[in-house]
Amino acid sequence: VAAEGGSSAEVAAQPAASGPTYKTLLVTTEDKITTIRLNRPSKKNAVSVEMYKEIIEALNQAAKDDSVITVMTGAGDFYSSGNDLTNFTQLPDGGVEQLAKQSGEVLRQYVRAYIEFPKPLIAVVNGPAVGISATVLGLFDLVYATDRATFHTPFSQLGQSPEGCSSYTFPKIMGTAKAAEMLLFNKKLTASQACEFGLVTEVFPDSNFQTEVWTRLKNYAKLPPNSLALSKQLIRSTERERLLQVNDAEVERLVERWLSDECMNAIMTFFQAKAKL
Amino acid sequence: VAAEGGSSAEVAAQPAASGPTYKTLLVTTEDKITTIRLNRPSKKNAVSVEMYKEIIEALNQAAKDDSVITVMTGAGDFYSSGNDLTNFTQLPDGGVEQLAKQSGEVLRQYVRAYIEFPKPLIAVVNGPAVGISATVLGLFDLVYATDRATFHTPFSQLGQSPEGCSSYTFPKIMGTAKAAEMLLFNKKLTASQACEFGLVTEVFPDSNFQTEVWTRLKNYAKLPPNSLALSKQLIRSTERERLLQVNDAEVERLVERWLSDECMNAIMTFFQAKAKL
Amino acid sequence: VAAEGGSSAEVAAQPAASGPTYKTLLVTTEDKITTIRLNRPSKKNAVSVEMYKEIIEALNQAAKDDSVITVMTGAGDFYSSGNDLTNFTQLPDGGVEQLAKQSGEVLRQYVRAYIEFPKPLIAVVNGPAVGISATVLGLFDLVYATDRATFHTPFSQLGQSPEGCSSYTFPKIMGTAKAAEMLLFNKKLTASQACEFGLVTEVFPDSNFQTEVWTRLKNYAKLPPNSLALSKQLIRSTERERLLQVNDAEVERLVERWLSDECMNAIMTFFQAKAKL
Repeated sequence: VAAEGGSSAEVAAQPAASGPTYKTLLVTTEDKITTIRLNRPSKKNAVSVEMYKEIIEALNQAAKDDSVITVMTGAGDFYSSGNDLTNFTQLPDGGVEQLAKQSGEVLRQYVRAYIEFPKPLIAVVNGPAVGISATVLGLFDLVYATDRATFHTPFSQLGQSPEGCSSYTFPKIMGTAKAAEMLLFNKKLTASQACEFGLVTEVFPDSNFQTEVWTRLKNYAKLPPNSLALSKQLIRSTERERLLQVNDAEVERLVERWLSDECMNAIMTFFQAKAKL
Repeated sequence: VAAEGGSSAEVAAQPAASGPTYKTLLVTTEDKITTIRLNRPSKKNAVSVEMYKEIIEALNQAAKDDSVITVMTGAGDFYSSGNDLTNFTQLPDGGVEQLAKQSGEVLRQYVRAYIEFPKPLIAVVNGPAVGISATVLGLFDLVYATDRATFHTPFSQLGQSPEGCSSYTFPKIMGTAKAAEMLLFNKKLTASQACEFGLVTEVFPDSNFQTEVWTRLKNYAKLPPNSLALSKQLIRSTERERLLQVNDAEVERLVERWLSDECMNAIMTFFQAKAKL
Repeated sequence: VAAEGGSSAEVAAQPAASGPTYKTLLVTTEDKITTIRLNRPSKKNAVSVEMYKEIIEALNQAAKDDSVITVMTGAGDFYSSGNDLTNFTQLPDGGVEQLAKQSGEVLRQYVRAYIEFPKPLIAVVNGPAVGISATVLGLFDLVYATDRATFHTPFSQLGQSPEGCSSYTFPKIMGTAKAAEMLLFNKKLTASQACEFGLVTEVFPDSNFQTEVWTRLKNYAKLPPNSLALSKQLIRSTERERLLQVNDAEVERLVERWLSDECMNAIMTFFQAKAKL
C-alpha cells in the first residue's frame, strides 16, 4: 500500500486465502474481522465504477465468510473523496442518457449492498470522507473517526442531490436543521461536530487512532456471532423497506439531475478548473 | 417598522414590485431571497387570524416566484409570541363551537403550507419564539438563532395540546425525553439548548447575528436553484404523508381541547391576569 | 425499605388506601402522583417474574386512578439490575422450550403496558439501570437521573438481543452510531453521556437529586390533567402501531435466542462465575 502520508499507514495484512482478488481494494480476514480497505490512495480513494462493483462483491463475500464483523477503511491519508467524477467522462454508445441510467443502476446496487448487509458493519474513518463515502455512513453500525477526518457532501454545489439514503438517515440521526446544512448547503463537518450530531460514534486523536480502534474491534469480534448478527438485523429490520424505497427515490432523482443543465455545467466547470491547475 | 428595541432593527427593504400587499407582514424579494417578515412588533408578532392567512398567501407566492430560498423572520425584538389569544375573543354566529372549528381549519391550512413548501425554508430567529411559531420550526430546513432567542411551547399550561407537527418532529429531532419536557411540561429552551438538541442549526451572538446570517444566506441563494429545491423535496418526501396525518390529528385534538373546561378556564385566567396589570 | 446504601434511601410513603398490595413493589399515590417503587433492593431490584407481573398490574391501576403523572423509581442504590437471571432456572413441565415461550409472553405483555400507558410516565433513575430496565426508558416521557446512574444493555455478551423496543427507540433517539455501541457492543453510558445522547432528560448531582426532582414533579402534577394525558397520547400515537410491531419482533427473536447454544452457554458461564464468588 503506497500511502499518501504516514499517519495512518499500516503493515498490509495477508489477503484472504481463497477469496477473489481486487484491483481497487485490499480485502483481508484476520481475528474474525474482514477488512475492506479502499486502495486507490493516489486518487484519494475516489470511487471509480470498478471500485463500486468491487465493493459490492466484497460486501457479498464478507456477508458469507466466517468473520464476525466487517470493517471498511481507506489506504493513505483519505478515507474516500467520493464518486470519481471521471466516471462521467467515458460515454457509452447510448450517450449521456445511457451513461446516467447505467450510473444510477450501479449506485442503486451499491447502496443496497449496505442496506442488506447482515453483520455489524464498522467504518474506520482514517481521513476526509466526501460525497457517497460520507452519506452511506448512516447505514453503518459504528463509525470511528480520527480527529483528522471531515465529512462533506457538496451535492448542490455540483447540481446534484443526496444519495446513500442520506436524505432519510441524516435527518433521522441529527435532525433536519443540521442535516439540511450538510445536504443542501454543503457544510463540511469536523470529526468532533459529526460526533456531536450523532453521525460518528467516537473520535480519537490521530496519533493513537489505529491502536485504540483495532484493540476494540478485536474484542468486539470475540462476542457471540449470531447474537451480533441477529441483533443488527433486528435494529435495521424496522426500516429496511423504507431504506430500499428511499434508495430508489434518490437514484431516480439523481439520474434526472445528471442530465440537467445545472449538473452538466457544474461538472464541466469542475474539469475546467482542474485543467488549469 | 416600529421595532420594540434596537438590536435587530433593520432598514426596511423595498417590497416586491408586483406582489400582493400585506397588513401584518413585510414581504420582499432581493438577491434571489424572498423574506417574509412578521410585522406586528408592538404585539410581539403574535399571530392573528389575519396574519395566519397572510403567511399562507405569502408562502404560496414565494413557492412560485423566482427566488431560490425563502426566509422567515420577525420585526423588532421578538421572533413571534405565537397564537394571538385575542383570536379566541371574536365569537362568530355559531358560538364557541363554530369558533373552534374555524380556528382549527385555519391552523390546518397554515401548517400544511409549511409541509408543502417546495424550496429551502430558513428561519432567522431574531428573538423569543413561542407556541405555534416555535413548533413549526421543525418544518424549516435551517434555523439560525440569535443568542437572545428562546423557544417555548406552553401548551398544557393553557389546557391545550401540541401543533405544527411538533408531536412528531420534536421527538424525532431531539428524542422523547427532551421533547416531552417542552411539549408536556412547558420547559423553555435557551438558544444554546435548542441548538444542542438539534432544533436550531446554529446560534450567533446578537451583536453580529444579522450580518453573519445574511452573508451566508446570500451565498446560499447563488447555488443551483433546481438542485436545492429538488433535494429539499427529496428529504421531505419520505415523511410528507406522515406529516399531513400528524397535522390532521393535532388539529382534531386541539379543536376538542379548545372546547374543554380546562382550556376555557386557562384562557379566562390569562385574560383576567392581563386585565389586572 | 432495606436500602443497600444510604444515598437515595427515603422514608416510605403511605400505601394507596384501596389499591392492591404488592410483594416486589411499593406503590403510593400522593399529591396527584402515583409512584411505583421497585422494592427488591437486596437483589438490586432485579426484575423477577413476579415483579414483571406486578409492574403490569401497577401500571394498569395507575392508568385508571386519579393521579396526573406516574413515576417509576428504585429502592436503595440501584434503579434496577434488569431481568433476574434466576427467572431462567425454574423449569416448567414443558422444559426449556416452554420456559422460553412463557418468558417471551410475559415480556411482550410487560413492554406493551409501557407502550399503552395513557398518562405522562416519568423515570426517577436513582442508580444504575441495566438491561430491560434501561431499554424501556425509551418509552418513558421524562427520564431524570442522578449522576451516579449508568445505563447498560449487555445483550450480546449474554448471547441475547435487544428488547423493550430499544431496537427502534434507541436509534431514533441517539442515532444508529451511538445506539449500536450500546445495543450490540455492550457500551455502558454514564448519566452525562445518556443525557447528551437524548436518552435522559436531565442529570442532577446525587446530593440534591431527590429534592430537585420531586419539587418539579409536584409542580407538573398541578397542570391540567386531560391536557397532559391527551398530549402524551398524541405524541405516542404516531408510533404506537410501529412500537407494537417492534415489541413482537423483538420478543420473537429473543425467544429463539434463549434456546440457542450461544445464550445457554453464556448464562451457564454467568452462574458458574457467580458460584465461585
